[in-house]
Amino acid sequence: MTDEIRRTLEQVRSGELDVAEALVRLRPAADLGFAKVDVHRESRCGFPEVVFCSGKTPEQARAISLEILTRSDRVLLTRAERTHAEALVEAIPGAEYHPEARCIVVDRDPLPRQGLVAVVAAGTADLPVAEEAAITARTLGAEVATCWDVGVAGLHRLIDEVESLRAARVLVAVAGMEGALASVVGGLVDRPVIAVPTSVGYGAIFGGVAALLAMLNSCSPGISVVNIDNGFGAGYLAALINGAARDDSG
Amino acid sequence: MTDEIRRTLEQVRSGELDVAEALVRLRPAADLGFAKVDVHRESRCGFPEVVFCSGKTPEQARAISLEILTRSDRVLLTRAERTHAEALVEAIPGAEYHPEARCIVVDRDPLPRQGLVAVVAAGTADLPVAEEAAITARTLGAEVATCWDVGVAGLHRLIDEVESLRAARVLVAVAGMEGALASVVGGLVDRPVIAVPTSVGYGAIFGGVAALLAMLNSCSPGISVVNIDNGFGAGYLAALINGAARDDSG
Amino acid sequence: MTDEIRRTLEQVRSGELDVAEALVRLRPAADLGFAKVDVHRESRCGFPEVVFCSGKTPEQARAISLEILTRSDRVLLTRAERTHAEALVEAIPGAEYHPEARCIVVDRDPLPRQGLVAVVAAGTADLPVAEEAAITARTLGAEVATCWDVGVAGLHRLIDEVESLRAARVLVAVAGMEGALASVVGGLVDRPVIAVPTSVGYGAIFGGVAALLAMLNSCSPGISVVNIDNGFGAGYLAALINGAARDDSG
Amino acid sequence: MTDEIRRTLEQVRSGELDVAEALVRLRPAADLGFAKVDVHRESRCGFPEVVFCSGKTPEQARAISLEILTRSDRVLLTRAERTHAEALVEAIPGAEYHPEARCIVVDRDPLPRQGLVAVVAAGTADLPVAEEAAITARTLGAEVATCWDVGVAGLHRLIDEVESLRAARVLVAVAGMEGALASVVGGLVDRPVIAVPTSVGYGAIFGGVAALLAMLNSCSPGISVVNIDNGFGAGYLAALINGAARDDSG
Amino acid sequence: MTDEIRRTLEQVRSGELDVAEALVRLRPAADLGFAKVDVHRESRCGFPEVVFCSGKTPEQARAISLEILTRSDRVLLTRAERTHAEALVEAIPGAEYHPEARCIVVDRDPLPRQGLVAVVAAGTADLPVAEEAAITARTLGAEVATCWDVGVAGLHRLIDEVESLRAARVLVAVAGMEGALASVVGGLVDRPVIAVPTSVGYGAIFGGVAALLAMLNSCSPGISVVNIDNGFGAGYLAALINGAARDDSG
Amino acid sequence: MTDEIRRTLEQVRSGELDVAEALVRLRPAADLGFAKVDVHRESRCGFPEVVFCSGKTPEQARAISLEILTRSDRVLLTRAERTHAEALVEAIPGAEYHPEARCIVVDRDPLPRQGLVAVVAAGTADLPVAEEAAITARTLGAEVATCWDVGVAGLHRLIDEVESLRAARVLVAVAGMEGALASVVGGLVDRPVIAVPTSVGYGAIFGGVAALLAMLNSCSPGISVVNIDNGFGAGYLAALINGAARDDSG
Amino acid sequence: MTDEIRRTLEQVRSGELDVAEALVRLRPAADLGFAKVDVHRESRCGFPEVVFCSGKTPEQARAISLEILTRSDRVLLTRAERTHAEALVEAIPGAEYHPEARCIVVDRDPLPRQGLVAVVAAGTADLPVAEEAAITARTLGAEVATCWDVGVAGLHRLIDEVESLRAARVLVAVAGMEGALASVVGGLVDRPVIAVPTSVGYGAIFGGVAALLAMLNSCSPGISVVNIDNGFGAGYLAALINGAARDDSG
Amino acid sequence: MTDEIRRTLEQVRSGELDVAEALVRLRPAADLGFAKVDVHRESRCGFPEVVFCSGKTPEQARAISLEILTRSDRVLLTRAERTHAEALVEAIPGAEYHPEARCIVVDRDPLPRQGLVAVVAAGTADLPVAEEAAITARTLGAEVATCWDVGVAGLHRLIDEVESLRAARVLVAVAGMEGALASVVGGLVDRPVIAVPTSVGYGAIFGGVAALLAMLNSCSPGISVVNIDNGFGAGYLAALINGAARDDSG
Repeated sequence: MTDEIRRTLEQVRSGELDVAEALVRLRPAADLGFAKVDVHRESRCGFPEVVFCSGKTPEQARAISLEILTRSDRVLLTRAERTHAEALVEAIPGAEYHPEARCIVVDRDPLPRQGLVAVVAAGTADLPVAEEAAITARTLGAEVATCWDVGVAGLHRLIDEVESLRAARVLVAVAGMEGALASVVGGLVDRPVIAVPTSVGYGAIFGGVAALLAMLNSCSPGISVVNIDNGFGAGYLAALINGAARDDSG
Repeated sequence: MTDEIRRTLEQVRSGELDVAEALVRLRPAADLGFAKVDVHRESRCGFPEVVFCSGKTPEQARAISLEILTRSDRVLLTRAERTHAEALVEAIPGAEYHPEARCIVVDRDPLPRQGLVAVVAAGTADLPVAEEAAITARTLGAEVATCWDVGVAGLHRLIDEVESLRAARVLVAVAGMEGALASVVGGLVDRPVIAVPTSVGYGAIFGGVAALLAMLNSCSPGISVVNIDNGFGAGYLAALINGAARDDSG
Repeated sequence: MTDEIRRTLEQVRSGELDVAEALVRLRPAADLGFAKVDVHRESRCGFPEVVFCSGKTPEQARAISLEILTRSDRVLLTRAERTHAEALVEAIPGAEYHPEARCIVVDRDPLPRQGLVAVVAAGTADLPVAEEAAITARTLGAEVATCWDVGVAGLHRLIDEVESLRAARVLVAVAGMEGALASVVGGLVDRPVIAVPTSVGYGAIFGGVAALLAMLNSCSPGISVVNIDNGFGAGYLAALINGAARDDSG
Repeated sequence: MTDEIRRTLEQVRSGELDVAEALVRLRPAADLGFAKVDVHRESRCGFPEVVFCSGKTPEQARAISLEILTRSDRVLLTRAERTHAEALVEAIPGAEYHPEARCIVVDRDPLPRQGLVAVVAAGTADLPVAEEAAITARTLGAEVATCWDVGVAGLHRLIDEVESLRAARVLVAVAGMEGALASVVGGLVDRPVIAVPTSVGYGAIFGGVAALLAMLNSCSPGISVVNIDNGFGAGYLAALINGAARDDSG
Repeated sequence: MTDEIRRTLEQVRSGELDVAEALVRLRPAADLGFAKVDVHRESRCGFPEVVFCSGKTPEQARAISLEILTRSDRVLLTRAERTHAEALVEAIPGAEYHPEARCIVVDRDPLPRQGLVAVVAAGTADLPVAEEAAITARTLGAEVATCWDVGVAGLHRLIDEVESLRAARVLVAVAGMEGALASVVGGLVDRPVIAVPTSVGYGAIFGGVAALLAMLNSCSPGISVVNIDNGFGAGYLAALINGAARDDSG
Repeated sequence: MTDEIRRTLEQVRSGELDVAEALVRLRPAADLGFAKVDVHRESRCGFPEVVFCSGKTPEQARAISLEILTRSDRVLLTRAERTHAEALVEAIPGAEYHPEARCIVVDRDPLPRQGLVAVVAAGTADLPVAEEAAITARTLGAEVATCWDVGVAGLHRLIDEVESLRAARVLVAVAGMEGALASVVGGLVDRPVIAVPTSVGYGAIFGGVAALLAMLNSCSPGISVVNIDNGFGAGYLAALINGAARDDSG
Repeated sequence: MTDEIRRTLEQVRSGELDVAEALVRLRPAADLGFAKVDVHRESRCGFPEVVFCSGKTPEQARAISLEILTRSDRVLLTRAERTHAEALVEAIPGAEYHPEARCIVVDRDPLPRQGLVAVVAAGTADLPVAEEAAITARTLGAEVATCWDVGVAGLHRLIDEVESLRAARVLVAVAGMEGALASVVGGLVDRPVIAVPTSVGYGAIFGGVAALLAMLNSCSPGISVVNIDNGFGAGYLAALINGAARDDSG
Repeated sequence: MTDEIRRTLEQVRSGELDVAEALVRLRPAADLGFAKVDVHRESRCGFPEVVFCSGKTPEQARAISLEILTRSDRVLLTRAERTHAEALVEAIPGAEYHPEARCIVVDRDPLPRQGLVAVVAAGTADLPVAEEAAITARTLGAEVATCWDVGVAGLHRLIDEVESLRAARVLVAVAGMEGALASVVGGLVDRPVIAVPTSVGYGAIFGGVAALLAMLNSCSPGISVVNIDNGFGAGYLAALINGAARDDSG
């Protein structure tokens, strides 16, 4: 930032830039009252702000999305209930609702798919979170392979898929209950593994804490963890890693 | 117990038994002041009371052991520190101290070894607990096979041993960190698996709670769990299951 | 597994087996998209995969059940809500729903009942979990004796039943609140005791954690613990131990 | 207190009491700088302030004790380390140190012993806490009966003592591990039971929380609980209940 | 119990008692299938079994109550929902429902009220629990004084009542949030105080754990604690202590 | 209080005050049965008792409010549901309901606004808590500036507002999720910061504990914390600090 | 900050400031390798950076202190062990070590004392934390009154001091165990109260969590909380509030 | 793996491979009794097994290291105490001990450094963990830039470094206390951020859980978390991501 300030200072001094304009450079958010939309994010990060719908009314989610779409071809909304979907779909042509994954995607000019992210899920009940990860990574430009119901109680199901998992640049392992899938996947590949604990289970599961702790304490190296049920976070990070790999290859 | 009382009542009525003797039958503990030794346990359960040394002075542990040995050929002491060992070894010929497993064994007439218990441990740091399980099961009459350092980060190490694990009547799976070993073993065999979480690890391990929760929430059926670091409990239960199998085979 | 691979290798070499068939041997799961059904489980373990309904739609539970029944005479579904029951019962003749225990049983050729599993429950509110354990053990071929409402606040109720409990090869102790039943039962018998904490209670009960901790820390040896409210897990393991006893008696 | 103020007001009005003296009545603490000693406590409650040594230097404990003894024949110090004992014993003739219970008792004119408090302990390792309860209750004037090592793993040991337990006006049940003793005792007697969880145990014991939760969730009525390892609190309350019974009998 | 057995033995020997009758003495529970009713409890403890309705159907609660009333003039049901009340009130003349306290009382021959139990509550939201305590103690024969909304934020409200509190033989202090009321009451009286934490509050209250911990760690002596929201337990114990005081006064 | 008693004593002695009146001075609460209203609070503290509606019926909330308004021009009710609002608004002219903040304000003679309290909120979902803080501080006489949606993921949004934040005498920082806003605000200003954790978030958020712990462990000095979602507490304390600053300036 | 940037921009444009100097304005930290010292803090906040010694070697603490003293007349070090004290005292004339409070103060030109902060502590064992608060507030220029050993078990001790507490602009309430002191103080004064939970206690105290929860859930308004044992944080904030009051009075 | 088996099957069939050799291919671990060393790991993953010294004796650590060095030019040991270092350094020429980071590095032929990993630490006390991350990433072939003591309490220190942070392919953010650094860094860059919570702090820090929760609940996208104090895990994963970026660029 020192460099940016220096450049601004020099442009102001040289007369290239006047003081008012210099100030505008530092006001990057559009204020909607209840929210300040980060309007420069796409130019800065390659993808606009993602809208987390939980705790927002359908009207708020819609207003933020419309604001983003004035500058971008795409917007992703997560944790969207049906009411959010209804408010969006009628207002924004092309908005697509994925009810299981609770995502809404508007993508007027899809990014070219590159690289490969593999999303692996332990059980049928983990699919909403796993789908959220897959949709997020795809929307951000990754090629995505999925592999469902490969929990460690039937290890052969996972081992059968090992070669295809090894083709990915980065893997997302989604599991509830004891969360052992992440450790087993981590022991089979030598790529970054993003572990997503889910709240699937009962009894001493504590809303996913059992899987979270298992994943944090994994004996396999190369694993990191996102919040419980945070499929979005895993998909976003996977796309970032996948993209980092790609971007540096020029 | 109704039956026992009935028999006692009838013997008293018939004159076979007088009242004082009937009362003695109901006083099964030898009172040492600080402890009441369960003197009928071996005849009732096939093995005398086991002495848990933690919180007992060496003198207390020795006195209880000597009391047990007045009626039995064997005694097992667990969680024995070196001071307990020193007090026992000088007082009781044949007492053997296993420092890593923190066990003292006196066994003047070893039980014949039958059946097979397999004890599996995830890492080198889990060995004290795993050894405690193995020594306990052996002292109680089981044949024991051990399989060390087969954690799930290198799955091939475990899979290499599957056939020998399948030979056991019951398995003990010992693991700290994320405790995934129990689920993986449970998915590979169709025998009872006793899972022992250990306190091995650091950070969000909470003294073994991470592995404990993983094991309680295992997606593999046929698994039950004992307390953290409770190698003794697992070995004792394994011997009981192994023996149950054996006893019914007459 | 080394042996299996060796045998396969030798059969392939000798021409007994061709490469395609050798591969089929290693593909043991039928893929339904949302689930991979473990089709070889019954031949491997004596009982087909059990369907855990929680987190599955009625349609998914039914599809998995039908897949299993193509190869087996029986299937057990646990945590089944009424909607699951309705979907199953209309599709599968002979499907029986146990609403209290939340189980559905299809058993076209019941296994012969052998051995004896005793299921003991502390209070009336623990019955759903206790019934789940009893139904599971019975479906897997065990003779089952039940003993309800024998909590430790009225110890005579339990002591009155001691002789019948001692007849079992393995016991399941189901209790909520302070979970003391497991310790007391464990002190009265010399057989394996599987403790099932339930979420029955209020206040500082933490969804069954109070009973879970009590059971893990039991001062009676020979006890192991399954997850809170996991009647299925206890019944399955009890049947396994009961069966191990039986199988070795030839 | 309204009554006391009224009486003071009327005495001041009538001239019986002057204003300065009226204020003294309301200054009931002797200020030692680091502590304010409650000098009226014995006249108010029948026993002077008890000194909790933890977090106090030997010098502070001694100074408070000497201040109390200027007005009383007795003082009780709890959680006293050997250094506290040494500072007290040399300064105060008749001070007696009980190292296991970590108590120091000065009692120049013992109260007459009345009533009966029974203190019951589950295991040998619980004795320090149980002794603290017994010494406290005795120092406060109760007759005390003790019953050690009667944990529920060997239920007959406890049942053997039932008649003597039933003779007590109030019982103290001390237990670590799963803390089941309190529930069992509560089910056998119809007197108040004060449960004391201890920190004895390991693994998922959480410093006594396992026993604490078990006792709070006891299915037996008539039980209340004090803090983990708080033998003093139980003994004090038991003496209070025992005394209440006695005091009202005039 | 040794004495009882001795007496039974001697009566059998002398011919006073035959063997069948001796056995009946040891079968004190009426078995309703889902419940075993402790039919000797009133003669043993002075009050029949109390029915905890939570987890029981209205039909089960009614059947147990009717069984108890075959031998007793009174029954108390706690945690009764309106459905329980409706089932009882139509079946049992004289059954009275207290909806706020969630209690049903049948009392055909009220016990004479003796002694005094004071129930003190911190806030308006604590009243359901406090009322449960008061109704329980009254039904068990205690005179009860109540003192509502005297939380420590307005200390004068409590101090104004001190003299009337000091008239009680035992006090029950009911408080949620920070639970400080118990410590303050304990510092003002020299009688046993039973503290009842409630789940009243929000945020870092953890369902009453905040008040529970405060009460367990109280710096005032003479306090013990029952489970969160357990008004019944406190009222029962208070009546027991109050009665103990009374019973010994003959 | 000694001084007050002294003054009362002297007035009684001199005849200025008779005994009955002296007693009235010490009875500061109006007893409504279910509640004791602190009628002297406004004269003592400058603002009457605030009514916390949670756990109170609409009728109870209304009765307390009417009692307060007999002596005051204003009353504030927090955690008011729509049913409370309806009961109040029809009974009390001028009562204003703020549904998002769940507050009802009656203010017949608004206090003059002085000083400046700044309320800062991290996200849109934190607004209900933040609005509660702002309304409380305003009702107690503070000028309030608000700054919404300035979470640390887009730091420039906050930095853009720094100068206006520095104008406040005290700041309230409201944030859920990781609660980092408080630390960042605390590092940017040298005024007292009151941090309010909210329960906004999911997964390992534990109802706001994540933000609570972050705020308690803040590396910035000058920060203190109120309960999770306690906007009222923060607004009240902010007004107190703001007023303290003002009051001393005369 | 916009204003500062604007001013800088204009000064650069007008030639008052050259680019290099403008950059220096934005480099406010002296880099020692292991630490970056915030050298402008005193001019910005009125007091230089405080050195938290825990986790720093004596050499690191000394180097940072010397760096601060190149620009300031004072430095405060907290959590200083004796080794830190020794390193400082020999290197810096006038450095004063307070071993109980674990503080080192260098103050070559003490600030004038104004306002009044009252620090109240519940028990003798809370004094180290209370002293840390008092020393911090004094070093930052507040007049400080202290009031030790006024826990709520002997309420009269606190009430005796009420008038002097009411003289303070802000109060600090330090208490371990059940932490009730904060609520009681908060109910007696109408000034801001900063509550400091301490880790004093045992059993279910959880290192001070019991008091922390009590204080967060206080029913008295006007209270906020700092971290467990954080006497420094409370003293610093108290001085800030006290100073805010003072600064605005000009 | 199916492919590998297929290839093996075909080679055996064709006679290229005999059965014994085929079996050796599946025995990838060298068994030292207490440990099974994964001898093929470097060829599989590019780096040999890393030795975690905690829970291993110096002799065990040395034996494993020597085994690894028979096939590799490098080995990394983490959590090495001085005793481990002494055992290694005398046995293995070129072994280098980093006491602060508790690492031992043997690197006979350093990998070429490529890419850039930035390691950022909040405070001086976080340096041991941050150094462990930096050493690990360097040993695995990454260029590493470090940035110490840039906690959010002095935000300018971090903002000053933003441009250099933006040059990295992946960042590691190490922080204890409230762990806000990760969110702030994540908001400033658009690269993957690996957050490492440390156990630095006191009070309600719970051994690093405060920072762990903050990081898991971060409002900034692109962040994942490793275990508390797991500098190794973060450094390893960073190198993997950095390498993935590099490997795909050919």
